[in-house]
Amino acid sequence: MTGERAELARFSFNQATAKHWALPDVVAGCVATGVPGVGLWREPVAEYGLDRAAKLVRDAGLAVTTLCRGGFFTADDWWDENRRAVDEAATLGAPVLVLVSGGLPPGSKDIDGARARVADAIAELAPYADSAGMTLAIEPLHPMFAADRCVIATLGQALDIAERFDPSVVGVVVDAYHVWWDDTVYDQITRAGEWIASFQVCDWITPLPEGVLLGRALPGDGCIELRRLREAVDAAGYTGPIEVEVFNAQVWARPGEEVLTASIDGYLREVV
Amino acid sequence: MTGERAELARFSFNQATAKHWALPDVVAGCVATGVPGVGLWREPVAEYGLDRAAKLVRDAGLAVTTLCRGGFFTADDWWDENRRAVDEAATLGAPVLVLVSGGLPPGSKDIDGARARVADAIAELAPYADSAGMTLAIEPLHPMFAADRCVIATLGQALDIAERFDPSVVGVVVDAYHVWWDDTVYDQITRAGEWIASFQVCDWITPLPEGVLLGRALPGDGCIELRRLREAVDAAGYTGPIEVEVFNAQVWARPGEEVLTASIDGYLREVV
Repeated sequence: MTGERAELARFSFNQATAKHWALPDVVAGCVATGVPGVGLWREPVAEYGLDRAAKLVRDAGLAVTTLCRGGFFTADDWWDENRRAVDEAATLGAPVLVLVSGGLPPGSKDIDGARARVADAIAELAPYADSAGMTLAIEPLHPMFAADRCVIATLGQALDIAERFDPSVVGVVVDAYHVWWDDTVYDQITRAGEWIASFQVCDWITPLPEGVLLGRALPGDGCIELRRLREAVDAAGYTGPIEVEVFNAQVWARPGEEVLTASIDGYLREVV
Repeated sequence: MTGERAELARFSFNQATAKHWALPDVVAGCVATGVPGVGLWREPVAEYGLDRAAKLVRDAGLAVTTLCRGGFFTADDWWDENRRAVDEAATLGAPVLVLVSGGLPPGSKDIDGARARVADAIAELAPYADSAGMTLAIEPLHPMFAADRCVIATLGQALDIAERFDPSVVGVVVDAYHVWWDDTVYDQITRAGEWIASFQVCDWITPLPEGVLLGRALPGDGCIELRRLREAVDAAGYTGPIEVEVFNAQVWARPGEEVLTASIDGYLREVV
């Protein structure tokens, strides 16, 4: 164990970056490298056991910066699933539950309707999150996911919803991968201000793989101006964690320790 | 030959929809089905011979609705290439040259710089196009192409440039595939008005294939509200051709006649 490292004070390692690394190893790896925080996902947490996972990270002194994810509001079971997600985030001590809105219902072309449903669902869920002390963070995904994963495709759209609430209850995720292409992104980050509940980084490379989900790169390996975005969220008043979150089959094939080290290196070189 | 068909008065068949169909067969197929217009691409036209292609379509009584494409302004030879593209469009009798701006230069992360270069290049090219009686049509591509093909990612961005010019000189392409996800698209179409130089349709399906270029579907096979978009461009004052333009390896593997018939069917059922 190397103890605290000042330059990593805001660094958080999202466990999806090393998808096949078991949770105890993720936690041990973070402790050993002086990483103060982790972003967790519901599925691997459930697999390990919620209470056991909560104890594991608490005993290690790690902060859980976000839990991924709630949302998918166009599914029939959205209400139960999202209350469960809020409860799980609270049990883990995460201050933020990330929401991915869901895409169009099967066979539907009604994107306006799907968007309205997302806004309505968040309004229904917000009091429950508020009572749990949880911030719901709306994550706009890149427009290439608009049909099948997330009808909220821009930071501006996410803010149109989030601004109806107190920022302690509903905020937004600024994920560099999803927003970098937007010519209005710096204006929207300024607008976002205290509604920024999470800042996530990875990088954009081409060609995109089939299905496009696993096309992300480690920070610095692509074309995103990560430092500029980080400076913009800072200038907007954000002082919270900066999560490295990469989905990439080649990265997942590497040993977890190596991926964590590469994430830290990219973060120090390209982000802060 | 079936002669003129009133319901196809605005229909144009973009030759890229049946990529492997030879130009004389495309022309014969269009004439036989009563299709009045075709969209052409520089490469297959050059392969057939520019003057020969111009004579072929003229003798067949077909309108060339657009030529694809100029642009790629971040390449070193952009000036010569784009003047050639204007000349070729004029030779073919096309009123519109489609511009795809190009992506980031290799190794660059400077998307603002690339965008400024595109705007400057269009300003340099516009007088040449004007003297040739050619409308340059800026095509925003879906943001998934922002890094490697087109830094102009929204209709709003395209209009920010086009509005600096007379609409007879610089306009925009509204391609349903590239803009459907944008929650501001109907406002931007209203704004576009007489700057709309071309309207193209195809459909969005998932999963996207590797490289994402060939993921388009025939009109009606996906989730885009094509009729709503057509009504919006009409309401904005557009009265020009409606091009079906699909890039899809499975579609390309089908006989050209069959693809043309399917394109017409989709157009009649989903667009007009």
